[in-house]
Amino acid sequence: MGYNDVKLIGAWPSPFVMRARIALNLKSVEYEFLQEKFGVKSELLLKSNPVHKKIPVLIHDDKPICESLVIVQYIDEVWSSGPSILPSDPNDRAIARFWASYLDDKWFPTMREMRDAQGEAKKAAISTVMEGLAYMEEAFVKISKGKEFFGGEKIGYLDIAFGCFLGWLRVNEKMNDLKLLDETKVPNLWKWAENFCADNAVKDVMPATEKLLEIVKIIAKSKAP
Amino acid sequence: MGYNDVKLIGAWPSPFVMRARIALNLKSVEYEFLQEKFGVKSELLLKSNPVHKKIPVLIHDDKPICESLVIVQYIDEVWSSGPSILPSDPNDRAIARFWASYLDDKWFPTMREMRDAQGEAKKAAISTVMEGLAYMEEAFVKISKGKEFFGGEKIGYLDIAFGCFLGWLRVNEKMNDLKLLDETKVPNLWKWAENFCADNAVKDVMPATEKLLEIVKIIAKSKAP
Repeated sequence: MGYNDVKLIGAWPSPFVMRARIALNLKSVEYEFLQEKFGVKSELLLKSNPVHKKIPVLIHDDKPICESLVIVQYIDEVWSSGPSILPSDPNDRAIARFWASYLDDKWFPTMREMRDAQGEAKKAAISTVMEGLAYMEEAFVKISKGKEFFGGEKIGYLDIAFGCFLGWLRVNEKMNDLKLLDETKVPNLWKWAENFCADNAVKDVMPATEKLLEIVKIIAKSKAP
Repeated sequence: MGYNDVKLIGAWPSPFVMRARIALNLKSVEYEFLQEKFGVKSELLLKSNPVHKKIPVLIHDDKPICESLVIVQYIDEVWSSGPSILPSDPNDRAIARFWASYLDDKWFPTMREMRDAQGEAKKAAISTVMEGLAYMEEAFVKISKGKEFFGGEKIGYLDIAFGCFLGWLRVNEKMNDLKLLDETKVPNLWKWAENFCADNAVKDVMPATEKLLEIVKIIAKSKAP
């Protein structure tokens, strides 16, 4: 696979960028990682994603593809140099897509709110995040059928969609001094998270919690009056 | 196709339900349309979509599929009894998915806000909606390559994702006494909308603007103190 054909505009702390990186790793596709600087958007990003002006953008043969889940599906459809990322059965695919969209539309936005919320709003956010983890625990048991991953024996679409948030989940645990991914409450998910982070396609792109905590400090500083 | 195998929980005014109906029409799949009553959620809906408790839900062989775009992709993957709904080229698929998600995440929510907004907020919403139409006009020219639809000679994924909002777009035009889909500003989109609404898979499920305006009155009444 020609190195110059595939570029990824991104930044290492972004969970959405991580999705594209894991999918490329799974397919053993080499790519040039063009990292955006904090607080400045590159000309290439603005040109490649004029609507949202957001990372990640995959550039393949000079054509930009935007939106992380669109990118993951694109990678799966273009490269057969690795396991299938989407399940082959239409019903399984629909279920994986349903949960991925739940995570992006409801669960992760609430986890992001959690960090800054206070008092009752924080309690409500924590409760929604915990409810979401309970949903995902139940979904994992049904979907994985005793295997290690949502995708079975290998990491698949929903593993990537959910797993990319594990770093930020741990940051939220640290900052709020609470256990969200609790071994006693969501034991299957807890084990899945261990397996996911240890996977060859993941371990080098999953940021350490300490490094993400430094990013939180930089963001807080940039917002300070 | 056995009639009993396919059920759709929905309501005729919902643009998201319309997506599933158009996709089923395109594939000539017969289905039982189980309409929800306004203001009450059926036991079947609550059981079939416990996370969002929202229509549409497609029930196929007793298995529920939720989320309109997930349903459309499912229908495309399961039934070969009609034209393909998603484009066959991965890049075209990615572009169709990108715009569908833009419409759901940004454009339609702003159009919904437009109705109730006042003053400066209303002006800003109108401007965002118009900007979205300009994006879609440009996208149409690129994607359709001179053909009638985003999908080429036949209605496809992005036609369904966007076209389902045309009824509510017209309601917004009437209520705000302005032209959004303007023949002089977005001529290709204007023509596309005509073709879309006249299509055999669409014409019987696209509600008349007057009927939707009655629904707006019912909703307003239900919210009045």
